[in-house]
Amino acid sequence: MKKTFDEICENTPVTEDTVAVIMRQPVVLPPSFRVNEAIERLRQVGPAGAEMNHCCVVDGDGVLLGLVSLRALLLTRGNARLEAVMDHPFATVRPEDDRELAAQLMEEYDLLELPVVDGDNRLEGMVTADDAMTVLQQESTEDMEMMAAMTPSEAPYLESPVVRVFLSRIPWLLLLMISAAFTGGIIAHFEDALAAQVALTAFIPMLMDTGGNCGSQSSVTVIRGLSLGELSFSSWPRVLWKELRTGALCASVLAAVNYLRLLVFSGVGQGVAVTVSLTLAVTVVLADLIGCSLPILARRLGFDPAVMASPFITTLVDAVSLLTYFRLASWLLGL
Amino acid sequence: MKKTFDEICENTPVTEDTVAVIMRQPVVLPPSFRVNEAIERLRQVGPAGAEMNHCCVVDGDGVLLGLVSLRALLLTRGNARLEAVMDHPFATVRPEDDRELAAQLMEEYDLLELPVVDGDNRLEGMVTADDAMTVLQQESTEDMEMMAAMTPSEAPYLESPVVRVFLSRIPWLLLLMISAAFTGGIIAHFEDALAAQVALTAFIPMLMDTGGNCGSQSSVTVIRGLSLGELSFSSWPRVLWKELRTGALCASVLAAVNYLRLLVFSGVGQGVAVTVSLTLAVTVVLADLIGCSLPILARRLGFDPAVMASPFITTLVDAVSLLTYFRLASWLLGL
Repeated sequence: MKKTFDEICENTPVTEDTVAVIMRQPVVLPPSFRVNEAIERLRQVGPAGAEMNHCCVVDGDGVLLGLVSLRALLLTRGNARLEAVMDHPFATVRPEDDRELAAQLMEEYDLLELPVVDGDNRLEGMVTADDAMTVLQQESTEDMEMMAAMTPSEAPYLESPVVRVFLSRIPWLLLLMISAAFTGGIIAHFEDALAAQVALTAFIPMLMDTGGNCGSQSSVTVIRGLSLGELSFSSWPRVLWKELRTGALCASVLAAVNYLRLLVFSGVGQGVAVTVSLTLAVTVVLADLIGCSLPILARRLGFDPAVMASPFITTLVDAVSLLTYFRLASWLLGL
Repeated sequence: MKKTFDEICENTPVTEDTVAVIMRQPVVLPPSFRVNEAIERLRQVGPAGAEMNHCCVVDGDGVLLGLVSLRALLLTRGNARLEAVMDHPFATVRPEDDRELAAQLMEEYDLLELPVVDGDNRLEGMVTADDAMTVLQQESTEDMEMMAAMTPSEAPYLESPVVRVFLSRIPWLLLLMISAAFTGGIIAHFEDALAAQVALTAFIPMLMDTGGNCGSQSSVTVIRGLSLGELSFSSWPRVLWKELRTGALCASVLAAVNYLRLLVFSGVGQGVAVTVSLTLAVTVVLADLIGCSLPILARRLGFDPAVMASPFITTLVDAVSLLTYFRLASWLLGL
């Protein structure tokens, strides 16, 4: 299903990488020109200036009227006016727009070139498909780096000095380590309960990891959906509802399998098995809901949703999971 | 720095999505044609068949001799032979090649069209830039989904039924939950030591999360490098050496900050602080080394490197981290 132009524009993130940085100068022709005059002008400009597949038709004030493809010039009799053979521009962008918006529009609508105009529709430049491909690759790389808690880097990995790689990683590791201390605080708070039932400790990694995995599944799904323009803030209720049901299904299966595994293969009692499995179920549903919500909220607040990916969600989900665990343990096991 | 054609080909992953699926039929012309004959042929074919910006020049056996751009046809005098105005194809792909290879070549070399030929250089079709953009987007989405332990889906998220979303997630969650039981086994094994020093439990989440974050940073860096053709199996030693140094830097800073935090803000003794900080340092370095190695090995074995992303590495790093923790604790604290 094609997204509408408005949907794509509404959903595209705000960064400093603007269209102005990647646009090029097209060949410009007046609407009164005839086809053979246009061809003559292209010959004068030579191959360097004629590297695009469309020329832009503009009026005396520089306002974009239409696009003429080289194909149209080639296939049309020489005395036709450009006004008669030009196409209305399918879409345009502004120089200050995000370059990712331009690339997304071109990908979505199979455009090889996209005109750039100012607020008065005056032509400023053109974005070409080869640059759009590069933008799509770079933006995907940036998203993946942010999702893994790294500051995106421009240089290829092998050519980056170790110190730069280090600097792109360490602030996030420090921040996340400090946040994890918070989780440690929860455990310390329930130290007496744990001392009374040390067996509970063995299930902490499984609960934390499963919660983290669920959170990362739903957050990455939503981050990519936002980045492709398939989701926006207004989709939040639908996303929540879908994640609630998906989470409930996952929670049921995981909790059931875990319960059977504990009863059959491990020596823990019925109480511990129920506590662990119930915690698992609650954690999975909450992780899915947190994972899908944080990126949408980040976008709403003007941040890149990819920043709200797995590591941050994992830290939050850890805390939720442990609190649930100890509450349930004190309730079911009387600790 | 541009990669060579061989580098890109060598490093491109093997999947079932071949070039044959996305290639289109170009306009084909004999080399003996003159420019005005070529234009006449394009007029006959009409706009539908002339949607590309290059025509292919082939001999009587269908062997690709060169490409003629519409621009060249437009700018050249009508009696020139195509042999004289055609360009040698910059690159070609085979129908059975991965469509991602074609898209990467086009992105890297700014090509709007890429000819597809068989083993005898006979023309089979053309890949166009609009399709290449779609391939780049889809492959990035697939990589992100696999990195987050999901089976890639074709359909947009909001349009996928809940059951399908569930099925794309549950096998990985189950697999990872069972693997995490292994980690739980390690804790259970050291239950007596933990019972003697319950304070150690509080640091398990921080150690596991930091290890997981480091592993995910290095694995995502390497997975993307492999996917962009910047890395291959032969780069493994260089990657290991770089991750070893980056890991050592991160480990030093994290361990130092953690040590100070424990001494100043928490009530633990010197022994526990040293044990936790040393474990942290060892975990960080090992996590970086494991994180960068597994994707490279996966590619070598013919799997998609993205499968070896964070969740799997986290599970492995958890085990390594806990083993280190308990060994160090028994050594330093005499447990």
